[in-house]
This record gives sequence, C-alpha cells and structure tokens, in this order.
Amino acid sequence: MSNLCDKQNEPDNRQIDIDKVGVKGVKYPLVVLDKNNGIQNTVAELGLFVDLPRHYRGTHMSRFLEVLNDEGNVFHIDSIPRLLSAIRKRLNARTAHLEVTFPYFIKKIAPVSGRAGLMDYEIRFDATQSERKIDIIMWITAWVTTLCPCSKAISRYGAHNQRGKVTVSLRSSPQVWFEEVIEIIEQSASGSLYSLLKREDEKYVTEYSYEHPAFVEDVARNVAVKLNEFSNIAWYKVEVENAESIHHHNVYACIEKK
Amino acid sequence: MSNLCDKQNEPDNRQIDIDKVGVKGVKYPLVVLDKNNGIQNTVAELGLFVDLPRHYRGTHMSRFLEVLNDEGNVFHIDSIPRLLSAIRKRLNARTAHLEVTFPYFIKKIAPVSGRAGLMDYEIRFDATQSERKIDIIMWITAWVTTLCPCSKAISRYGAHNQRGKVTVSLRSSPQVWFEEVIEIIEQSASGSLYSLLKREDEKYVTEYSYEHPAFVEDVARNVAVKLNEFSNIAWYKVEVENAESIHHHNVYACIEKK
Amino acid sequence: MSNLCDKQNEPDNRQIDIDKVGVKGVKYPLVVLDKNNGIQNTVAELGLFVDLPRHYRGTHMSRFLEVLNDEGNVFHIDSIPRLLSAIRKRLNARTAHLEVTFPYFIKKIAPVSGRAGLMDYEIRFDATQSERKIDIIMWITAWVTTLCPCSKAISRYGAHNQRGKVTVSLRSSPQVWFEEVIEIIEQSASGSLYSLLKREDEKYVTEYSYEHPAFVEDVARNVAVKLNEFSNIAWYKVEVENAESIHHHNVYACIEKK
Amino acid sequence: MSNLCDKQNEPDNRQIDIDKVGVKGVKYPLVVLDKNNGIQNTVAELGLFVDLPRHYRGTHMSRFLEVLNDEGNVFHIDSIPRLLSAIRKRLNARTAHLEVTFPYFIKKIAPVSGRAGLMDYEIRFDATQSERKIDIIMWITAWVTTLCPCSKAISRYGAHNQRGKVTVSLRSSPQVWFEEVIEIIEQSASGSLYSLLKREDEKYVTEYSYEHPAFVEDVARNVAVKLNEFSNIAWYKVEVENAESIHHHNVYACIEKK
Repeated sequence: MSNLCDKQNEPDNRQIDIDKVGVKGVKYPLVVLDKNNGIQNTVAELGLFVDLPRHYRGTHMSRFLEVLNDEGNVFHIDSIPRLLSAIRKRLNARTAHLEVTFPYFIKKIAPVSGRAGLMDYEIRFDATQSERKIDIIMWITAWVTTLCPCSKAISRYGAHNQRGKVTVSLRSSPQVWFEEVIEIIEQSASGSLYSLLKREDEKYVTEYSYEHPAFVEDVARNVAVKLNEFSNIAWYKVEVENAESIHHHNVYACIEKK
Repeated sequence: MSNLCDKQNEPDNRQIDIDKVGVKGVKYPLVVLDKNNGIQNTVAELGLFVDLPRHYRGTHMSRFLEVLNDEGNVFHIDSIPRLLSAIRKRLNARTAHLEVTFPYFIKKIAPVSGRAGLMDYEIRFDATQSERKIDIIMWITAWVTTLCPCSKAISRYGAHNQRGKVTVSLRSSPQVWFEEVIEIIEQSASGSLYSLLKREDEKYVTEYSYEHPAFVEDVARNVAVKLNEFSNIAWYKVEVENAESIHHHNVYACIEKK
Repeated sequence: MSNLCDKQNEPDNRQIDIDKVGVKGVKYPLVVLDKNNGIQNTVAELGLFVDLPRHYRGTHMSRFLEVLNDEGNVFHIDSIPRLLSAIRKRLNARTAHLEVTFPYFIKKIAPVSGRAGLMDYEIRFDATQSERKIDIIMWITAWVTTLCPCSKAISRYGAHNQRGKVTVSLRSSPQVWFEEVIEIIEQSASGSLYSLLKREDEKYVTEYSYEHPAFVEDVARNVAVKLNEFSNIAWYKVEVENAESIHHHNVYACIEKK
Repeated sequence: MSNLCDKQNEPDNRQIDIDKVGVKGVKYPLVVLDKNNGIQNTVAELGLFVDLPRHYRGTHMSRFLEVLNDEGNVFHIDSIPRLLSAIRKRLNARTAHLEVTFPYFIKKIAPVSGRAGLMDYEIRFDATQSERKIDIIMWITAWVTTLCPCSKAISRYGAHNQRGKVTVSLRSSPQVWFEEVIEIIEQSASGSLYSLLKREDEKYVTEYSYEHPAFVEDVARNVAVKLNEFSNIAWYKVEVENAESIHHHNVYACIEKK
C-alpha cells in the first residue's frame, strides 16, 4: 500500500515539539511476577507514548499496537524495558513512555481463624526511556481501616472509623516487591482489610483498630518513616484518603520525599 | 432548508418499534423548589426520550434540545409535566420520557454546637407520559453512618462503622418533599452525616452511633417501616450500600414494595 | 468461638422481607470459556446475594466469600449453577443471585492487511436461582462506528461519525456464545472497531462506514432483526449509545423484546 | 467544650512535615463571573488543604468547612485570594491550597440557523498561597470534533471523525477569561460542538470538519500557537484526547510550555 499518502510524515512548520503523543485506554491481558506463586494473570489498562519533534506532523499510532502485539496475547511486567526500546525504535523516537495499571491479588490469612481470602490491590507503572536511562515509577494502592484518635479520646465509647485508600508511588533500584510496600501500608493504619473474616476475626480487627487509632496524617507519616529505611528508594510520595464515616466529604494527606 | 432531505422521515420496513430513543448526558442549569428557601440553583444531567413507531426510520434529535431551550436558561422541576407534553407534541410521539439527576443542598445544623453547614444529596426524577397518564419516580440518595451490631456485640470495645449510601426510589401522589425522605433515611441508620462538626458534635455523633448499631438490613427495614406509614406512597424501593471499613468490598440490601 | 453472640440470627419483628442482601464490588480472578482458545484468564467484579425472610435480622456476609473461595484462586464461568446452589445451601436461602462482570478479549483480524490485534468487550451475567429454576441474563457490550445517514445525505462531502456503545442483554437456552452476539453487534453498525489498523485497513473501514450509514435507531433495529432469528433467545434488550462527534451529549435507542 | 482533649495539637516526634492535608470531594453551590451575563450559578467540587509542620500531629479539619461556610450559601470565584488567606490564618498554616472544579455554561449560536443552545464546559482552579505569593492554575476543558487527515487523504470518500476532549491548564496575569481559552480551543480542531443543530447547521459542520482535518497533534499545536501570542500567559499545558471512532482506545497528545 505504499501509494497511500502518509499525512503523518508531512513536514510541520509550527515549530512546536510535542512532549507526549500516543494511545491511551488500551485494555490488555497481563502476566505479572508474583512473589509467592511465580506468576499471576490479570488485565491491564495501558498507555503508550513517544515524543514528536517539531518537524513531523504526526506519529504513527498503529505502531504502538504492533509493538504491543509482538508480545503475544499476554504481556509480562518484566518486559517493560524491552517494550520501551521497541517503541523508541519502531517510532523513531527519542523518548518512549509506558503507563500500565492493573488489579493484583494476594492470598491473605484472617488473623484468628486462619481462613484465607484473596485481597485485591491496584498497581501502576509509569516508565520512561529517554536516550540515556529508564525511569520507572511504581504506584501501589491498598485500602485500610482508620480509626479517629480524636473521636476515641473525647467519646465515652466507640470511635468513628472508615475505609481509607493509601497510594504510594516510588522510584527504587533495585526494584522493591509490591508485597513489601503493601505490608508497609497495611501496618501503618489502624487496621488492615480482609476478604474473609469470621466472627472471631471481626472481634480481633475491631479491638485492634480501637487500640491503634490513626489520623490520615498518622498513616501518611507511618508509611513515610518505614519507606525512609529503604536505602534503595530514591523518591516516594504517600497519599492517604479517608471516606469519613461522619462526613460526606473525604480527608486527605500527602507526603513527598523531595 | 426544506430542500435538505429528511432521512429520519424515511419509511422503515424492519417492522420493529423502538421503545425509547433520544438524548442522554445533557448538562443543564436547573432551578428546584426548596422547602425552606423557595428555590435552589443547581446543575442537572438530563435524558429526554420518546418511543418511535415501526414505520419511521428515525426521530428528530434536535427537537429535544429545542423543547429544553424553550424553558430558557434554567429549567424548573415543576415544569416536568409541561416538558413531557411539549416533547410528545414536538416529536409526534405517544410516549415521552424525562430523566433528570442533580445535587441538592440542605443547610444542616450540628447536633451540639448548633453550627450550620451545607449537606449535599442526590435527587433523580424518571418521568414518563403516555397517552393517559404521567408516571413519576423520584429517587433520593443520602449518605449515613452505619455501625455494625455484630462487631459491637462481640468486641470488648469499639465497633467497626462506615459511610453508607441509601437510595430510595418511590411513586407518590401527592408528591412527598425531598426533605421528608431525607429525614427518614437519616433517622434509619446509626447516624447522620454532617458537613461541619466541632469536637463536642463529634463526641455526640460517635456515642450516638455506638448506641444505635444497624446492619445494612436494619437500615433498609427501618426506612421501609417509615415509608409504609405514608398512604400517598404507592411503590418504593430502598437500597443500602455500605463501604465496609474492614473489607474492600461493599455490603448491600434491597427492599421493594410490590 | 461459639460463645460469640450471633446478632444476625436474632429474631426480627419489623415484618419485612429483604429481597436481596449480600456483597458487592468483590474483585476476583476469573477463567472463562473461550470459543477459539478453550479458556481465557480475566478479572471480574462480583456481587453475591440472597433473599432474607422477615424473621431473621441479618444474613451472614462472610459465607458468600467462603463459597467463592471454595472455588479456589480462580472461578470458572460454567460454575455459575454450582455456585448458586452453594450460596443457597450455605446461607439457608430460598433465592440466590450472582452478578459477574468482566472484560473479554478476542483476536480480531484487520480487514485488508490481515494484521491481528486483541479487541476487548465487556460481559456480564445476572443469574438467579430460586427453588424451581435458574434464570440467567447475559449482557454483552461491544463498541462500533456509526456514521450519520442524515449528515451524509445533506452534505456535499463527509459525514459525522463516532464511537457507539452497543449492549445486548438476553435470556437464551441453550446459551448462545459471546462470539455470536458480538458478531451480530459488529455487523449491525456502520463499521466495527479494531485494535490495529494499517493505512490500507483505515482506507477500507473509512469507505465501508461511508457506504453503511446508520442512525442509532438503525443499529438497534439491525441487532433486533438478527436476534429475532434465534429461536433459543426468549428475551432480549438492545441498547445503543453514540458519543456524538458534533454534540457533547449522547444519543440513545433501546428495543426490548417483550 | 474546652475540656475535650485536642489530639490534633499533640506534639509529633516522627520528624516528618506533611505537604498537603485537608478535605476533598466537598460539593458546594458556586457563583462564577460570566463574561456575558455577569454571574452564573453552578455547583462545584472543592478540595481545601494546608501544609502541616513536623511538630504537630494533626490539622483541624472542621476549620476548612468553617472558612467555606463563612462565604455564605454561595461561593464567588473572585473570592479565592480571600479564601486562601482565611484558610492560612484559621489553620495557622504557611501554605493554603484550594482546588475547585465546576461545569460552566455558555450560550452558543448554531452556525447557519442562528438557533441558540447552552454548551457546557469544565473549569478548574488550583490555587496555592504561600507566604509570599498566590499561584493560580486555571484548567479549561472543552470538547471538539476531530477529523482524521490520513483517513481523508487515503479514502475515496468520507473520513473518520470523533469527539475529542481538549484540556488547557495555564498560569496568566492578568487572568484570561474562560471564554477566550474556549474560543481558542474550539477554533483549533476540525470543528466545534453545539447543543442544538438544525439540518442546515449539520450540513455546515459536516462540510466544515471535512475541510479542516486535524490530527490530535494538530489540535495541540494549533492551541499552543495561539496561546504563545498571549504575553500574559507564563505557562501552559495542552492535552488532547480523541475517542477514536475506529478504535476502542483513545489517542492523546500533550504540549507543555516550559
């Protein structure tokens, strides 16, 4: 089909570089490395992008999908560097970006009954390869219980508590495991969530939360203190958001390691 | 422009009536009647639809917008019957449907300090006019606190609690006020949410919730019991969904008056 | 832990049956049958519910998760009847409901270049088992191109077109394949979407759409005509929604086989 | 209630400053300045935050709502500087942040028939006051038509087109009007969206789009070229995302003025 004109290759005289151009919202089956079971099948949402110098009118969008399809029906998370190189090469770009988000499951044991259930987390990678290096930011979201220290302190009984969402984004080398970050998050709140809790477990987590009250600020700081102990984590950001049980709005705290 | 051909008016030979055809996701400023303040300005999302008999190929979508624009820059909720009639007439339809969803605000007083704050609720109307009558379903969503009776009963101290979402849809004649249904919902849970709570209020709502534990089933039944007392409510559905603070999944209960 | 009191088993005197009570938003790895490849790994969102007679205060939420976990780390779609029976038995319920939604992938070949790419669809099952029978509703969502017949007819060149979303829900026995319904949807619009299109494919799909203009009403009727040919489909509903390229609102059509 | 202990004021020894802490997802009626009509009523979603030095355990969340409520039942957009100062003072903070997002409506005239309809846009402000200065970023989102130049060039007739979303964020002093940025966006694509189009208008916009094909890269560059002409715009970012009518994934381009 070489006789079909190539509009994208036309010269452009607006003198403006494009920082990032590509495809978004691509759904794709994904195989990820799993610390305990070897591999895990999941489904990801992907974004693939390149830079576009000022003298080209457009990028060739179909090539992103070709690179992705060359991975076969599944895509391994440890193929990120190879994928970034392939994007740069296939699209003649200086910079390639990959964004990938997926649910991730861990078998979690109830604290008293020992019953197992699958907990879901959300993982995201933002990876960029420019000429000299690859920059990878990993995002991990886990949900927790938070019990309000103020409510506990001023009330004769009870204390309002709620589901909180904790997102840690970080740069590390060598890469930390998802499981390590999830453990840090779950130990930094008033309590940890479970898929399956029997009555004896519910008693345990209720009392545990009451004994470990934590403001949204406390959770963020507890996570930060633990991340500071990792010499291989160069940068991080911790975000905590509580779906307050006494308000319709949420409360939020954020700490970034500069 | 009468010389532009009218594809929509072409005959259709597939012999299939269309039940509902029209426009969705139309954003529009709205003025609603407010029990305490007369009127309230808000922003709605609208759907406007008609039926389409088998012998017409298409409806005339622009006419829905014309009918809406004839209302001026704002749209009053008490204009629903007039709007439905206008849609039927303007589109030569037997049946007209209107769906309208909007946030609604009520000034709410904190229980001890007496401080005021604006609480937001979600209101929806589904209105249908066929040849003989108008059928209006009103939906009201309010958020509440629920405190688990089981967790309280088995634990030495504390009890898990969380934000719950309660949606009541109903048919009534004469129409009940939003405020009446909201009051019913807020009195049927472990506690009610507030925009602004000072420390003395937080103590009050914490202790109140602890004293009023309610399963998702309890909230649904409490609402149903109160709605049963309204002789002008012919049909209702109550849905309760808790964002459990000890699980990542939600729990849900539903009661429908047949 | 038999000494922990069982609040859920307390008698209830409000005299109100609960139609549906259970868990929602449960994420879980799923294995589905795939017409071409045998099986496919995906990730589902699940809801599991039962009815609750008036004389019980609450259901036992943890038992839903136990039933689900008994399936192991993955859940097969052909295990729906077994799962429903297990829910009814484990929760002593007359009626069990299961809702399961997941992305589903099919390798799709570009029309001229023959290049393959993975297309994603959305599948949902709503299954209910009461004492006498199982009722299963299957939902399939596929995205298509629609090109406006009116715009084509009145314009000297071009025609506005856009991405449309088509959802078919149906009851069938024996069950139809996802792939059959997807094929019907994709052949009922102005064109079908692809993951990967090279220039010769883009020329083909552009011209094909221009040659096959279709209103939202046309797509709905085209699907209905084809579904009417299946004697094993007892009931269906077709919904089409276009993200109009000339409006910010959408247009919508719905046909239900009564 | 001075005898209720103040947990938030407790000293903290974790030695970690919190960058941003406060409330999110607060819905509130808003009055905005409107270039043509003076003022406009809308509904906003707000976030209000401060920094928290390392020696305090928690911030006082209720004070954010108090500051907001002091504005009365409505909140004027030109009150942002006053609100930021009030937050800093009321919470003894060095830095105050305000995020506010709302739909905004403009009466728009169809190109041939002259019929009017209300178009909706999305506006957001991110405002930060630290000790020395206020930094305000304004975000404007408008939706457009894009028609693919490649599809037009290679096809005998037609060209795929779709709804695109354009978001411009910028810092300007003096502040530009929403209306100016919206006009720039709408003139940079293949066409502009309307609420109400009669047949003669639909002919016009169809032909206009066909005559003005634009890649996602073209739209981003066209916007950037026009923003470069404003000497009062110090920084901007342009993002364009097309809901491709031939793919289920989107295409995206981004230009940032450094």
